[in-house]
Amino acid sequence: MFRKTFALLAQSAGKTIPPVKLGYKYMLKDPSVKYKPFTAVDLPNRQWPSKRITKAPRWLSTDLRDGNQSLPDPMSVEQKKEYFHKLVNLGFKEIEVSFPSASQTDFDFTRYAVEHAPEDVAIQCLVQSREHLIKRTVEALTGANKATVHVYLATSDMFRDIVFNMSQEEAVAKAVEATKLVRKLTKDDPTQQATEWTYQFSPECFSDTPPEFAVEICEAVKAAWEPTAENPIIFNLPATVEVATPNNYADQIEYFSTHISEREKVCISTHAHNDRGCGVAASELGILAGADRVEGCLFGNGERTGNVDLVTVALNMYTQGVSPNLDFSDLNSVVEVVERCNKIPVSPRAPYGGDLVVCAFSGSHQDAIKKGFALQDKRRAQGDQLWKIPYLPLDPKDVGRDYEAVIRVNSQSGKGGAAWVILRSLGLDMPRNMQIEFSTLVQTRADSLGRELKSQEITDLFKETYNYSGEYQDITLVDYNVTKLDKERRELTGQVEINGQVFDMVGAGNGPISSLVDAMSNLFNIRFEVANYSEHSLGSGSATQAASYIHLAYRRDSDNAKVYKWGVGVSEDVGDASTKAIFHVINALVQSGDIALPDRTSKVSGTA
Amino acid sequence: MFRKTFALLAQSAGKTIPPVKLGYKYMLKDPSVKYKPFTAVDLPNRQWPSKRITKAPRWLSTDLRDGNQSLPDPMSVEQKKEYFHKLVNLGFKEIEVSFPSASQTDFDFTRYAVEHAPEDVAIQCLVQSREHLIKRTVEALTGANKATVHVYLATSDMFRDIVFNMSQEEAVAKAVEATKLVRKLTKDDPTQQATEWTYQFSPECFSDTPPEFAVEICEAVKAAWEPTAENPIIFNLPATVEVATPNNYADQIEYFSTHISEREKVCISTHAHNDRGCGVAASELGILAGADRVEGCLFGNGERTGNVDLVTVALNMYTQGVSPNLDFSDLNSVVEVVERCNKIPVSPRAPYGGDLVVCAFSGSHQDAIKKGFALQDKRRAQGDQLWKIPYLPLDPKDVGRDYEAVIRVNSQSGKGGAAWVILRSLGLDMPRNMQIEFSTLVQTRADSLGRELKSQEITDLFKETYNYSGEYQDITLVDYNVTKLDKERRELTGQVEINGQVFDMVGAGNGPISSLVDAMSNLFNIRFEVANYSEHSLGSGSATQAASYIHLAYRRDSDNAKVYKWGVGVSEDVGDASTKAIFHVINALVQSGDIALPDRTSKVSGTA
Repeated sequence: MFRKTFALLAQSAGKTIPPVKLGYKYMLKDPSVKYKPFTAVDLPNRQWPSKRITKAPRWLSTDLRDGNQSLPDPMSVEQKKEYFHKLVNLGFKEIEVSFPSASQTDFDFTRYAVEHAPEDVAIQCLVQSREHLIKRTVEALTGANKATVHVYLATSDMFRDIVFNMSQEEAVAKAVEATKLVRKLTKDDPTQQATEWTYQFSPECFSDTPPEFAVEICEAVKAAWEPTAENPIIFNLPATVEVATPNNYADQIEYFSTHISEREKVCISTHAHNDRGCGVAASELGILAGADRVEGCLFGNGERTGNVDLVTVALNMYTQGVSPNLDFSDLNSVVEVVERCNKIPVSPRAPYGGDLVVCAFSGSHQDAIKKGFALQDKRRAQGDQLWKIPYLPLDPKDVGRDYEAVIRVNSQSGKGGAAWVILRSLGLDMPRNMQIEFSTLVQTRADSLGRELKSQEITDLFKETYNYSGEYQDITLVDYNVTKLDKERRELTGQVEINGQVFDMVGAGNGPISSLVDAMSNLFNIRFEVANYSEHSLGSGSATQAASYIHLAYRRDSDNAKVYKWGVGVSEDVGDASTKAIFHVINALVQSGDIALPDRTSKVSGTA
Repeated sequence: MFRKTFALLAQSAGKTIPPVKLGYKYMLKDPSVKYKPFTAVDLPNRQWPSKRITKAPRWLSTDLRDGNQSLPDPMSVEQKKEYFHKLVNLGFKEIEVSFPSASQTDFDFTRYAVEHAPEDVAIQCLVQSREHLIKRTVEALTGANKATVHVYLATSDMFRDIVFNMSQEEAVAKAVEATKLVRKLTKDDPTQQATEWTYQFSPECFSDTPPEFAVEICEAVKAAWEPTAENPIIFNLPATVEVATPNNYADQIEYFSTHISEREKVCISTHAHNDRGCGVAASELGILAGADRVEGCLFGNGERTGNVDLVTVALNMYTQGVSPNLDFSDLNSVVEVVERCNKIPVSPRAPYGGDLVVCAFSGSHQDAIKKGFALQDKRRAQGDQLWKIPYLPLDPKDVGRDYEAVIRVNSQSGKGGAAWVILRSLGLDMPRNMQIEFSTLVQTRADSLGRELKSQEITDLFKETYNYSGEYQDITLVDYNVTKLDKERRELTGQVEINGQVFDMVGAGNGPISSLVDAMSNLFNIRFEVANYSEHSLGSGSATQAASYIHLAYRRDSDNAKVYKWGVGVSEDVGDASTKAIFHVINALVQSGDIALPDRTSKVSGTA
């Protein structure tokens, strides 16, 4: 083999291909002339990198506001209602439902949410810092048991300059004015006392705002609102656009958290987007840095790359032993509602919810998972409940997903994959040798189809190959009896039926299996051997059955080559299972034309 | 409005809905009994959080190996070839192409890559620490100009215990043995000197391996390989499964980077997966922590949630002014190849490459982007080339994407969106008032269709509404002449054609526009006023045209209400543009039935 390769190589020697030079049709060789790096926070004594997440934050779903506004085809009112109830059932206690001053549809939906929210769920609405819009927003929220008015204002240099042409002083004045108006219309209004009003203020984009100014404007807003420790003001610190590595967002949060006064009267909230693919990291590092609350969407919907995916942040905690206080026990139904309402598919590789994320295609991964499950079963029997399965950080069953999905089989898969499918579908734990034989057949089939085989196809291929259901019945057992010849030898006598005619048979061996195989050898005039034999129980309790695996071998007439074939039989009786296995394999060999049925004339009435 | 709402509220008052209790059908209320938190690295003096990414790492694409092995339908050989050449053209200098000891297909493809790689591109192959597999792998790579043999071995407690049942000592011995074998077969073999051999070792899963042991086994491997500073050994430190927040991965990398000896002879490589949605963050923080090299896939393919997405890591650098040394100037073609070969769509919200990530649907976002572009045009004229557009961290043109895609319009969009589309498609910068009028029409249309409007549909709606192409020609201008009555007054005389008949017209005003509108008023016996007028140039150089916008108003006969309608005309001559605008709007009003054509009998031959 080596030599052949060298010969090949000699042919191509010397033909080196020159390096590829990059084209740079549009991208710049030196992008620094166009893009400036982010301004880092100076926080040399940061504490967050040594911290851990030990309890769930407050969650705010903005699916119905920030998520919905970004959909090519926004949700219908009916879809918004369905989505709202799903959020409530998952355990969300704070839901941003709309921008009610923007349209009658949003106003009407806010009224629906106010009227249908459980008493511990706060309805939140977004509004700009403008008087008539704030009035309309408070109107929409009136009568809620718990309501949050969420005011935002541009504070970053870019937004103030480009969009609003407003100085820092003007921004502070405007924020204070808006806050006082909300206060007057809500908690200070004697007619509004049935509602627990919370105020949320977002300096936009916080991630691009000098941290000193973010603190300054929030101090002014806090003084205007006068929160209490029981009902803190929410300072939502949006990474409206991700502009830096997520550690810088954490630095910004920690700076804010350690510089804002009356910290106990403040709830710090993250609102991460995903422009740099780090929304989850930003939210998590934000929690380490002191955030109390996380805003986002299910599976990360929202403008451009979306808001942070709350499913991932929540289940990340769960797999670390921390309850997120959200119940994703039926994750498939969450995917279903989100996909239907958003009309955007959840990526097959989305953490936790994606179709492919509980799947292993590679043979080594499949083997490892199989071994992990086997060891875990043992550990569980000894009282150890810890989840330790290679490549699976979460037990798929915890989110209502099936083990069936865990191992899938394509042409890149090893023997473990197909074996797993058969174990799960038929309960059969094939001997290692049989796994190798069967996986070769599966790979050939997958290769020829050029695609993954479905579990059902693998199961069908198994049944067909091993005549598992006994579909082929050219020769069937009528009856048999085993008698002791001496201490070690047994004799089997019996009858088989071939094409409606009964034949006698006789054979000897050191047990019933070898005796039956000997009888078959005599009948077919082919010397069969048992190359391998194993059995295991199947199921548990009163329904226990036995599975028998027989590896039959014989020499082929045409070329004298040794041919091997597995058979398997299942029965409540172990002996019966073995007998079935032998008849299954013999019939499979007949069916495939590998062996011929006994010659009628010479064999009629047997030799017993 | 307030009163009405209060009345509504009174009806629903008192009907509070009790809190929802979580069902917890499968998820555990206290997951700590099943899941243990990760073991954090003790690294109190960590330096990485204060660092920044200032230069591109070495990149390794594992699309053809780790990516391909995880596809439900793996790539065909032709697709692997196409993908390989795409990677080369993007600028990848290290490409892991296969696991050649696993199958003949992989072996053959490795030979193809060896023979078709430019001389500066290293071909990398993965192999287990087993003698016959290593031999086969070296054979596959023989003759390459640059080749990397990548050996992996289980080092984490879980993998050693569950999968291999191997002690730490046994693992070290096995790693050293494999390394020596590779060395003997490659750089120490006199017949293999045409190739620049690099050795890569991956302790698996590094992210779950005690950092002291990771260093220990790598020290032993390094001693066995004896790398040089010119051709360092690659220690690839895989987060095969993401098990912790990404700051812990960075701590692990920094620990390794500061504890391994002969650091200059070592290339530290990250290999992040995305189980917790933090693959990009892990890679980036890994670079801050000392990694020299990043492994991953385009758009994050790979088992389960995939490997880290290299497009995102690379373009994240680019938007910070750091060249990634990869050329994604034609990102759409990258998406196209990846989707076709992987048969898995790139998510519409995938950073940089997703369909929706350069889009803004919300009105306030659209306005901000529009203002940003306007200001940027001014700044550019003054020599400031910096990119500062709200909500767009990257200029879509840098990756070959179009501005057309930037603003898309649905029922949640404000006036800015539709205006942008018209600006881009027709070059028309509508007056603010006209934007409001038109966006209402667009929203109504989008609402009634229940979906986003395509740019073409918006443009069509505009043309139809404003009779932009002059399709409606119930009344057309034949000729006119304007004469001076006195210093301020002008008189217009002319002819129009209605249904094939010519009518005279006459009108007076302080300029040609008001005179023409007066003449129309006389002709139709309706008092038209010009409520608003503006014009701007269109295009540049010799092809410059003028666009005129006329807001016509009149009182409706039926209810005496004031009716407004915009008209727009484009011509090389400003006066002609205004005349067109007036005829477009008058014809649009006739067409919609808002006004009637002049009565033929009374108006024939005019009043001049």
